[in-house]
Amino acid sequence: MSKKKPQNQTLDPENWDEIRALGHQIIDDLVDYWKGIREEPIWKPIPEEVKSTFKDSLPANGKNPMEVYSEFKTNIFSYNKGNVHPRFFAWIQGTGNPIGVWGDLLASGMNPNVTIGEHAPLYVDQQVVNWCKEMMGFSEDSSGILVSGGSMANITALTVARNSFADLNIRSRGLQEISSKMRLYCSEETHSCIQKAAEIIGLGTDSVVKIPVNNQFEMNTLALETQIKEDIDEGFMPFCVVGTSGTVNTGAIDPMEDLLKISRKYGLWFHVDGAYGALCKLDPVYAGRLKAMEQADSLAFDLHKWLYVPYEVGCTLIRDKAKHRASFAVNPNYLLQETRGLAGGPDSINNYGFELSRGFKALKVWMSIKEQGFLKYQQMIAQNNRQAEYLGELVRECEELELTAPVSMSITCFRMVKKGYSEPKLRSLNREILLQLQEQGIASPSSTILNGKYTLRVANVNQRARFEDMDLLVAEVLRIGRGLINSIE
Amino acid sequence: MSKKKPQNQTLDPENWDEIRALGHQIIDDLVDYWKGIREEPIWKPIPEEVKSTFKDSLPANGKNPMEVYSEFKTNIFSYNKGNVHPRFFAWIQGTGNPIGVWGDLLASGMNPNVTIGEHAPLYVDQQVVNWCKEMMGFSEDSSGILVSGGSMANITALTVARNSFADLNIRSRGLQEISSKMRLYCSEETHSCIQKAAEIIGLGTDSVVKIPVNNQFEMNTLALETQIKEDIDEGFMPFCVVGTSGTVNTGAIDPMEDLLKISRKYGLWFHVDGAYGALCKLDPVYAGRLKAMEQADSLAFDLHKWLYVPYEVGCTLIRDKAKHRASFAVNPNYLLQETRGLAGGPDSINNYGFELSRGFKALKVWMSIKEQGFLKYQQMIAQNNRQAEYLGELVRECEELELTAPVSMSITCFRMVKKGYSEPKLRSLNREILLQLQEQGIASPSSTILNGKYTLRVANVNQRARFEDMDLLVAEVLRIGRGLINSIE
Ligand SMILES: Cc1ncc(COP(=O)(O)O)c(C=O)c1O
Ligand SMILES: Cc1ncc(COP(=O)(O)O)c(C=O)c1O
Repeated sequence: MSKKKPQNQTLDPENWDEIRALGHQIIDDLVDYWKGIREEPIWKPIPEEVKSTFKDSLPANGKNPMEVYSEFKTNIFSYNKGNVHPRFFAWIQGTGNPIGVWGDLLASGMNPNVTIGEHAPLYVDQQVVNWCKEMMGFSEDSSGILVSGGSMANITALTVARNSFADLNIRSRGLQEISSKMRLYCSEETHSCIQKAAEIIGLGTDSVVKIPVNNQFEMNTLALETQIKEDIDEGFMPFCVVGTSGTVNTGAIDPMEDLLKISRKYGLWFHVDGAYGALCKLDPVYAGRLKAMEQADSLAFDLHKWLYVPYEVGCTLIRDKAKHRASFAVNPNYLLQETRGLAGGPDSINNYGFELSRGFKALKVWMSIKEQGFLKYQQMIAQNNRQAEYLGELVRECEELELTAPVSMSITCFRMVKKGYSEPKLRSLNREILLQLQEQGIASPSSTILNGKYTLRVANVNQRARFEDMDLLVAEVLRIGRGLINSIE
Repeated sequence: MSKKKPQNQTLDPENWDEIRALGHQIIDDLVDYWKGIREEPIWKPIPEEVKSTFKDSLPANGKNPMEVYSEFKTNIFSYNKGNVHPRFFAWIQGTGNPIGVWGDLLASGMNPNVTIGEHAPLYVDQQVVNWCKEMMGFSEDSSGILVSGGSMANITALTVARNSFADLNIRSRGLQEISSKMRLYCSEETHSCIQKAAEIIGLGTDSVVKIPVNNQFEMNTLALETQIKEDIDEGFMPFCVVGTSGTVNTGAIDPMEDLLKISRKYGLWFHVDGAYGALCKLDPVYAGRLKAMEQADSLAFDLHKWLYVPYEVGCTLIRDKAKHRASFAVNPNYLLQETRGLAGGPDSINNYGFELSRGFKALKVWMSIKEQGFLKYQQMIAQNNRQAEYLGELVRECEELELTAPVSMSITCFRMVKKGYSEPKLRSLNREILLQLQEQGIASPSSTILNGKYTLRVANVNQRARFEDMDLLVAEVLRIGRGLINSIE
């Protein structure tokens, strides 16, 4: 039985000591990086000669791992995005946490495919989903799945919502002629990923009806109900209401209680996009307003945002497990479920979502929650809210600054103002302040436009931010802004 | 400006030395694990008392990171899935590679959101996409995106295919009445994720027409063309042909050249599912048969399978960049594109796919390819094919074994046979062989059913497998099988 065989090749190193040494080097470099991050500039432009290296084509031959690493350090590590920094407040991007990174390292090193089979990672994944249910007040018999982020969490939920509509058997029969009739309602401030989801699942942009907001950027529920009635009268088929728990622009919260009632009244699926702010429920100050979220038919939220774990991980929860499974379960031959051996194990996770192969993203969450405990996360989330409110107070107390939206959750929107400045002039002033804040490496708010006003937007899901950082931010905005005003006049 | 502030809290450790020491411990444990993996059993059942720990509810309080790690080691690390093992041949699951794991560690530690902005990770992502185009013979002006895996790669491509159909403006207007008419063609051996994709994007199961295969499990292209013509005559709207480059069951390759021609002739979108086997193109033995893939309108393939990098990463390539972008680009206010600062940078990646937040999955690919070079991957992929063929020869030479499909790519399907055994009896025999192979920790083929025959299926995308492992596998199958036969008789 032993024939002549070619020499075996592998991607494993000939010399394990070298790859081990590189691993240790990386650990030290990362720890030093996090430890010293507060003293580093938040952002640096990438020199052209560095950028040009990224145009190199596929290398035919390899090189020593240490050389690869040193190239990485020079050209990549030095020009990071900055959301690990204590004064990163752009978009809604979490900071990451050290033990979460070790979790990712272990997940990658074990490299399980967390979909099917009898192995511990699958159970850890399910435990983390159960913890998500607990945090969100969903019942034990609801179902859930970890996904790559908020967009996927929303589209997964909306697919179930669509498939559960009426008795049309949409999963098998497709959308049929009703697709030009089905209507999904959300506010004008809803994240673009909801529209994108409607487009992807075949309903189209036109199926998304955007309801106006009040002056707190919350959905006007009177307008919602009027619209639903009108649509029914005109022969449309309302099927879903999407409420946002924490809009991306201003952290506004749609009136959950009202949306729940209206959804129930008209027999609509009630989905909550809590990508950013579902976890705000952990702050007692907000818990009451978010209580009705527990009754939603589905909920999407991100753990790589306000649970501070590294990218990627989000979660979809679905109240009715049977509907969830009915949307996604398939049973191809080659995945014969066994009761013993490696192919034994619990219900395959691909029966609950889009993906077949899945990594072990649950581990970073598991390790983080084990390390910190739930109560610490309550404190952290509350702290971000208090920091946002604190920044709001600083703005309110300063004549040269103006709040452009009520502070809600952990978002503070404001801008510098100057008597006699037109809107376009205020826009260039504040835009220049923003760019210089970033270019000088001080802090990274982002910008948005609210009621026509160009605005600095400080979104704080940062586990490294301190109250003093808000003092510094305001001082620097004023310093840069005053300089600009003086140089113009 | 300095007010009274509460004490700051953070998830960072008080004592950095502790988290650093844990990092070093993990590096050592992982390297020892990989280094010794050949001597370890491939799989172990999880004891009930371990499983029961995964039922624990959300912990209120935290504990020391070292304690968390020791819990991890005892309850999770010990019961891994096994696809890191040199004799893991179940499903199609890559092994992972050491420098790829270091890449994931760095990606998680830097924690960039690789979607938007001016930072190095975005350029690395684009470089890796360009390398994917080069490997697949796609032109420079085509486009692509890294996604979580083959399922997402396929559904992304099929969304573009759907949206590009006719001038119906499906993205805006939804599927309308045509959804019950649109038809997508693929073979009976096509992966279930294609059907799932059709369901998710609103076409429905019924839109997927499964074409029979020949005795090599390749799509019968005569039957395909006949079906298309019939469907047109009956008023259906064919829009897409899906060819598979490496079926999951047997590694069969649909006739790419013919599919391309038929697609062109009828004006259909030609998509290739190469999740498993697109990379087989790197083996000169297969390059010719896969050449026509370069002309496909879209191609989906996995890097966490046959490029051996850790989970998750797959890729979608789209011939026509404008169509790709037209399917996904949105431009919400809060993502104002800047020409300077952090919000400068190239076209946002969310304009090309479902996700907004995206991790730095490109880095593990970048580091792996830099370390090994393209030529080494050619050798590795060819080696897996030669190993599969070698196993095929061993089977052919042994009277007690039978091949149940031609060896194609790196999949060998076979079973033990015994004169006078009925099909059900052969099924229990081979099923028991499979379970014992796993339970005794020797090797992990999986099973499938081919032409009604229960089959052991050895799918080899394993960078640690050696030719000798095939000898061992056959010897162990015979040992277990003979034992079973004797014990029955
Ligand atoms: C309210 C809201 N929904 C959805 C998303 C999309 O989430 P992700 O970026 O994780 O895909 C975001 C992102 O900021 C968001 O704030
Ligand atoms: C041919 C084929 N297509 C698609 C897939 C799905 O890929 P993934 O598991 O990465 O989602 C697989 C997985 O084995 C496959 O073999």
